[in-house]
This record gives sequence, structure tokens and C-alpha cells, in this order.
Amino acid sequence: MNPEPFLHLDRVIHEKGRLAIMSMLAASAELSFTELRNALNMTDGNLTTHIRTLQESGYVSVTKSYAKNRRLTTCSLTAAGKKAFTSYVSLLEQIVQQNKPR
Amino acid sequence: MNPEPFLHLDRVIHEKGRLAIMSMLAASAELSFTELRNALNMTDGNLTTHIRTLQESGYVSVTKSYAKNRRLTTCSLTAAGKKAFTSYVSLLEQIVQQNKPR
Repeated sequence: MNPEPFLHLDRVIHEKGRLAIMSMLAASAELSFTELRNALNMTDGNLTTHIRTLQESGYVSVTKSYAKNRRLTTCSLTAAGKKAFTSYVSLLEQIVQQNKPR
Repeated sequence: MNPEPFLHLDRVIHEKGRLAIMSMLAASAELSFTELRNALNMTDGNLTTHIRTLQESGYVSVTKSYAKNRRLTTCSLTAAGKKAFTSYVSLLEQIVQQNKPR
């Protein structure tokens, strides 16, 4: 068993709420706060905290605008976020391969 | 993107130190505390805390004995630990599959 992949797992992405958010965003150009919250069944507070952490790490960019007199918050992965997520998924894949029954 | 796998990731196993420990133990019948600590480059305190959490969750059993006048602590997965780890790896695999470039 090679412990190397574990040591490199990005702590920011590895938290399961943030992993879910990053995966959702990796699959779309952008998603609104409401779409993320509903898909992941998170509270506003929980999602806000995770998005802030991802923003501070430079992985997610947040745009606030108005549409039909309502505030619209949209999130998308930055280039750094895409790169970090790709590396993370590749480490997960190594871990899965190591642990699959032979 | 199906958020289902994320919601079911076992928090006890998902922490990356514990994930490394569980993976090591899944690959061996048993390992000594020292073998785990050296392979994973953890401090005694860190490894002790993780092992305790895994023990309290019923995933790891710990045996203390004496060999050549030295205390020997060995760890192994319980049946529940093996089952939980297999489920966890299978969820990781789903996440990897969902996120692989098409």
C-alpha cells in the first residue's frame, strides 16, 4: 500500500460538502447559490461557509447580480479550482485502484 | 451530477489520516502501531487519536501484548470496519466515475 496519495489530498476539497460543491461546479459552467443548495440539500449557512472557504482558496469565483428584481448569486470554478479538482480526482482514483479487491 | 454518493461518505473514514490508516489495515491482516506510524509519517499523538476514533466506531480492534520485553500494540480491521471501508471505496469509485473527463 502506497501512502503517498493520501498525503497529497487537498484538505480544502476533501471535506465532503466542499467535494460535492466542487463536483457540481466541475460539471457545469456555473450554478446559482439556490441550485447548489437545493441539489445538495444544504442549509444557507452551511453552503455560504463552504463557498467562502473555496473562494478564499481561489477555487471558486462568485458573481452577484440582479435578475427580475431578485439578487442572483452564481458560482463557478476558477482555472486554479479546475486544476486542483482534477489533481484531487486523480488521487482518489489511485486510492480506489489500490483498494479494489484483486 | 448525482449528489447521492457524497451524502453517504462515512465521516469517520473520510478524514484523510483515518482513510490512510484504514487503507493500510485493509491491505494487511494486522499492523503494529509503529509500522502504521512510520509508513504514514504521523506523530504518536495523531495516530493514537485516529486509532481511538476508529476503535470507538467499531472499525478497528487494538491488541496490546509484550514481545521481547517491549510493549507491542497491533491494530486490525474488524468485520464492521471491512464492510464500512468497502462501502466507502465503492462510493469513492462512483465519485471518480462521475468526475472523469468524458
